Amino acid sequence: MGFNMRQRLRDGGIQVTGYDRKPEVTDVESVDELLATLPSPRIVWLMVPAGAVTASVVSELAGKLGSGDLVIDGGNSRFTEDRKHQELLAEQGIGFIDVGVSGGVWGLANGYGLMAGGDPEHIQTAMPLFDALRPDGPREESFVHVGDIGAGHYAKMVHNGIEYGLMQAFAEGYELLEAKDIIKDVPGTFRAWQKGTVVRSWLLDLMVKALEEDPGLSRIAGYVEDSGEGRWTVEEAIANAVPAPAITAAVFARFASRQEDAPAMKMVAALRNQFGGHAVRAPGQRQPESDQK
Amino acid sequence: MGFNMRQRLRDGGIQVTGYDRKPEVTDVESVDELLATLPSPRIVWLMVPAGAVTASVVSELAGKLGSGDLVIDGGNSRFTEDRKHQELLAEQGIGFIDVGVSGGVWGLANGYGLMAGGDPEHIQTAMPLFDALRPDGPREESFVHVGDIGAGHYAKMVHNGIEYGLMQAFAEGYELLEAKDIIKDVPGTFRAWQKGTVVRSWLLDLMVKALEEDPGLSRIAGYVEDSGEGRWTVEEAIANAVPAPAITAAVFARFASRQEDAPAMKMVAALRNQFGGHAVRAPGQRQPESDQK
Amino acid sequence: MGFNMRQRLRDGGIQVTGYDRKPEVTDVESVDELLATLPSPRIVWLMVPAGAVTASVVSELAGKLGSGDLVIDGGNSRFTEDRKHQELLAEQGIGFIDVGVSGGVWGLANGYGLMAGGDPEHIQTAMPLFDALRPDGPREESFVHVGDIGAGHYAKMVHNGIEYGLMQAFAEGYELLEAKDIIKDVPGTFRAWQKGTVVRSWLLDLMVKALEEDPGLSRIAGYVEDSGEGRWTVEEAIANAVPAPAITAAVFARFASRQEDAPAMKMVAALRNQFGGHAVRAPGQRQPESDQK
Amino acid sequence: MGFNMRQRLRDGGIQVTGYDRKPEVTDVESVDELLATLPSPRIVWLMVPAGAVTASVVSELAGKLGSGDLVIDGGNSRFTEDRKHQELLAEQGIGFIDVGVSGGVWGLANGYGLMAGGDPEHIQTAMPLFDALRPDGPREESFVHVGDIGAGHYAKMVHNGIEYGLMQAFAEGYELLEAKDIIKDVPGTFRAWQKGTVVRSWLLDLMVKALEEDPGLSRIAGYVEDSGEGRWTVEEAIANAVPAPAITAAVFARFASRQEDAPAMKMVAALRNQFGGHAVRAPGQRQPESDQK
Repeated sequence: MGFNMRQRLRDGGIQVTGYDRKPEVTDVESVDELLATLPSPRIVWLMVPAGAVTASVVSELAGKLGSGDLVIDGGNSRFTEDRKHQELLAEQGIGFIDVGVSGGVWGLANGYGLMAGGDPEHIQTAMPLFDALRPDGPREESFVHVGDIGAGHYAKMVHNGIEYGLMQAFAEGYELLEAKDIIKDVPGTFRAWQKGTVVRSWLLDLMVKALEEDPGLSRIAGYVEDSGEGRWTVEEAIANAVPAPAITAAVFARFASRQEDAPAMKMVAALRNQFGGHAVRAPGQRQPESDQK
Repeated sequence: MGFNMRQRLRDGGIQVTGYDRKPEVTDVESVDELLATLPSPRIVWLMVPAGAVTASVVSELAGKLGSGDLVIDGGNSRFTEDRKHQELLAEQGIGFIDVGVSGGVWGLANGYGLMAGGDPEHIQTAMPLFDALRPDGPREESFVHVGDIGAGHYAKMVHNGIEYGLMQAFAEGYELLEAKDIIKDVPGTFRAWQKGTVVRSWLLDLMVKALEEDPGLSRIAGYVEDSGEGRWTVEEAIANAVPAPAITAAVFARFASRQEDAPAMKMVAALRNQFGGHAVRAPGQRQPESDQK
Repeated sequence: MGFNMRQRLRDGGIQVTGYDRKPEVTDVESVDELLATLPSPRIVWLMVPAGAVTASVVSELAGKLGSGDLVIDGGNSRFTEDRKHQELLAEQGIGFIDVGVSGGVWGLANGYGLMAGGDPEHIQTAMPLFDALRPDGPREESFVHVGDIGAGHYAKMVHNGIEYGLMQAFAEGYELLEAKDIIKDVPGTFRAWQKGTVVRSWLLDLMVKALEEDPGLSRIAGYVEDSGEGRWTVEEAIANAVPAPAITAAVFARFASRQEDAPAMKMVAALRNQFGGHAVRAPGQRQPESDQK
Repeated sequence: MGFNMRQRLRDGGIQVTGYDRKPEVTDVESVDELLATLPSPRIVWLMVPAGAVTASVVSELAGKLGSGDLVIDGGNSRFTEDRKHQELLAEQGIGFIDVGVSGGVWGLANGYGLMAGGDPEHIQTAMPLFDALRPDGPREESFVHVGDIGAGHYAKMVHNGIEYGLMQAFAEGYELLEAKDIIKDVPGTFRAWQKGTVVRSWLLDLMVKALEEDPGLSRIAGYVEDSGEGRWTVEEAIANAVPAPAITAAVFARFASRQEDAPAMKMVAALRNQFGGHAVRAPGQRQPESDQK
C-alpha cells in the first residue's frame, strides 16, 4: 500500500523518498539515509504493520528526528497506541498525527479516503499530502480532521467495523439467492442492483466483479481471515456499552468459517446425544448437509 | 410510489392511465373505466399493498381481463403469493409476472432497479416499461430477469434484507463514533467516506444528508418500524438453513427499538434480583444509562 | 419415545396397547386391531413424526373413532396444526388435546414434563395418564394445562427453543475454557459447578457425563442437526416481533456447523480479495486456524 | 457476600476475623488489627470490589504480611490481574491464589461453588476453608483446582458468561409465551418445567419464584445492569477467536435495555426517512408498538 501511495503522491507533484526493507521497491538503503535525504522540517509517513513494528519504528524516529519534524502514522494502528507515540515524540519536539487510510488496491487510481487525528497545525502541515492522496473533488468528501490524537485511527477502525457488517449482509443475501431453486441468475441479480437500488455501493460493484470472474465462486474456500480492526470494533462496543450485533455477527462468522469441528458444536452434539439419544457423527464423517425440513 | 412511476413512464414516452382510490391522483374513476381505456392486449401494472389487497385486485382482474392480457405485480408481495396469482390468471389466459422495484422516493429522478420473475415472453412484452422505469445506461445494470414466477419478488425480498443489514451496520458505526469523546466531527467523518473508502455507497450518502439536516438526529426518535420483507428474509434463512445473523440482528434491533420495558429484560432483571439480590428499577424509573465500568 | 412411555404408563398401573409399524415393539398388528382392543370411550395417544405422518394418522382416526373418544397428540407437531386436527375430529364428536412431552431418553426413569392444550374436560379425562407419565411430586411441577388447543405444543416449542439457547451458551463457555492455556481441567470445572453455582442444571449434569465418557469430545464431530422446534421458535419470534437473539444464534450456529465452505463466507473472502488483494484459499486448502492476532 | 461467607466458615468450625469498613459488620477496626489477630501463617481472604480496590488492598498486604502467609482473592477480579498480584506478593514470600465464588445470596444456606487457580500447595493450605464454604457432598461437585494463577477467575468469568446466556434464553422464551394469546398460564408453564424437562435448572426455579411473587413482573422495569464478567467473556471470545453469539447477544440485550432512543436506531429511522419517505417519530412520541404485519 505504501508503494502505491508513493506513486500517487509523486503523481500529485510531491517529492517522496521511500524506504522499505525490500531492495526492489526502496529508494534508499536505510532509515538513516532516508532521513538524510529529507528537507527540513522533515515529514515521515509510516505505512508499517500495526503493533510492535510501528512502535519500534516510532521509537527509532524519536531518536533520529528533531524539533519541528512530523511523523504521520498512516497504518492500521490501534487508536490506543497513538497517545503513547505522540508523547514519546513530543519529548523531542517532534509532531505526530494519526491517519486512517482507506481504499485498498484501488487507491492508486481512485484516491484514498483519509481520516486524521491530532493537532490542527500538524494537520495543516500535512495537507498537501492529503490533497495528493485523496480523490479529486471537494476535500470534505474524502478527508476529515476527526479530532484529537487517536481519532483518525478510531474512525478508521469504525469504518472497517462497518465494512465487516456490510460484507456480511451482502454475503448472507448472496447465500439466500444461491439457496433458492427459483432463482436462475444470481450474478445477474447483483449486476442489476448497481443502478437505482437502495443497496448500490462500491462493495456491490466488487461483488459483481467477483461473480464475473468466477460465477459460482468455485475457486474460493469459505475461509475468512480477520484483522485487528474488526475485533477492536467489538471491544469498543463492549467498552462503551454500544449494542453492535450486526458487526459482531460478521466477526464471529469469520471465526466460525475457519473452524472445522468447533468445540462448542461438538458439545451441542454431545448434549443432544446425552438427553435425546440423537446420533452423533465421528470427526471426518462430516458430509454435505442433508435436507432439513 | 405508483404516482412517481406513472410520471417516469410518461417521461419515457409510455402512455399510462392510472387508477387510484384517491381522487386527486387518479386518472379514471374505476377499475372498469381503467380497463376500458387500455388498448388491447392490455398491460396492468399493480402497485398496491401486499397481501389481502393485492390478492383481491388480482382476483378482480382475473374476472375482467382476457386472453393475451398481462398483469404485472410491482408491489412488495411475498414471493409465495405469486404462483397462486399466476395460476388464477392463467385460467383465463391472462399472463402474470412479478417485479421487485427498488428506488424509493428517488426513483422518479434516478430511475428504479428492477427484478422480474416469470415467462420470458411476458418479460419481453413488458420490456418497454422496464426500459422507461430504469436508469439510463446498460440494461443489465438496472434490470434482471431473475427466474421463474416469484423470483422477482424473492430477489427484492433479499435486496431488502441486505438493506436492513447495511443500515444496521452503518448505524452501529454511527453510535460508536457518537459514543467516543475523542471524536469531534461525526457528520464530517461520514462525509469524508463518500469518496475513496470501501464503504462508499448510496446509503452512506443518505447518512451524510440526514446528518446535514439534523447533525445530532435530535428530532428523530430511535423507534423503527419494519415491513414484511425483512421478516420474510429471516424466515427464508430458517427455511433454507442459511445462517443470516447480521440481517436477523437488524430485524431484532428494530423490534427492540419499539419496546419499552421488554418482558424478556424484565425477566433478566428479576432473575438477577433473585439470585444476587441486585436492585431492580420500577417501571417508569428508567433513566439515562449510568456509566458502566 | 413411545416405547418408553408405554412402559412408564404400565408401571403406573395404566392398561396400554401399543401399535407401531415395527413388529418387534408393537402389541397389535394394525390400527384396526388397536382400536378394537380399547375399552370405550377410547383414548388414543399419538407419538408419531410431526407433519404429514401425524396428519395422516389423525385423518385415519377421524374415520374410525367415534363420539366421546379422545385423541392426544403427544408428538412434536407444530402448534398451528392442532386447530385443524381438532376441527377434523370434532366433526365426528371426537375430542382432541395437544400435549408437549419433554424428558428424552431419561423420561422412562425420571418421568416426563408435560404441557397440555385443549378443553378442560378432555384434559381431565387424560389426567390419569399424565399422572402416570410425570415424575412423582406435586403435579404442578411437572404438568400444566397451558391454554386452548395448540397451547401445549406452543409451550413445548418454546421449551425447546430455550433448550437450544441454553445448550449454545454452555457450549460457548466450554469452547472458551478449552481455548485458554491456563485452564488445566475443563471437565473438572464443569463437574465443580454442579452444586452451589448459578448455572447448575440438568444440562450441566449431562455435560459432566459427556466429558466423563469422552474428556476432549474427540469422538464427536462438531456437526449438529436441528429439528422443527428451534426453527419454529425463531419464526414465532419474527411473527410476534419478539427479539430472540440468543435462541436464534443457537439455530444459526447449528446451520453453520453443517456447512463447509459456506457460500456467504466464500463471498466475504472474494470481496476481501477484490478490494484489498487479500489472499484467498482454494476449496480443500482449509487448514486449522492460524494464530490470529 | 463476605458477610455471609464469614458466617458459613464459622458454621463450618473455622475461626474467622472479618474486617469491613462498615462498623456494623466488622470484627476489628483496621487492617492492622486484623493482621494482628490472625495466627501465623496467616490466611487473608479478600472479598472486595474488583479493580482498583483489590489492587490497593493487595498492595497494602504486600507491605504488611510476610513469608509463608497466603492471600486469597475471592472477588470478581479480572483474571489478567491475578498474575500481577501474585508477583507483587511473591516478592515478599507471600502466597497468592485466585478463587471464583458462585452462589449469590443463597450461598450462605446452600454453600458456594468454588474454582481456584494457583500453586497446589497454596490450594492445599486453603482446603479447609473451601470445604467449609462449599455444599455438602463430594468435593469435586463444588470445588475445582482449575489451573495456574488466574484460572480460577477465568473459570468464574466463563461461568458468569454462560449465566448471561442462560438467563437471556429463558427470558426470550418468557417473552414468547407472554406474547401469545393461546397461552393462558405463563407462570404455570414454568412451574411445570421444574421436574422432568430438559431445561430444569436452578435459574428456572428462580423464574418460578419471581413469577410467584409478581406474576406479570409488573413491578420491575426492563432495565438490566451488567458487570465486568459478561463483558470480559466477550473480550476473551474475541481474543481467542471463539464464536460466542449467544453470550454476546445477552450482553448486547442488556446494553439496549438501558437505552432510550439509541443513536443507532435514530440513524436507521433517519435513513428510512431519507430513501423511502417513511415517517419518523419525534423523541418522546414513542408509544406502545403498533401491530406489525
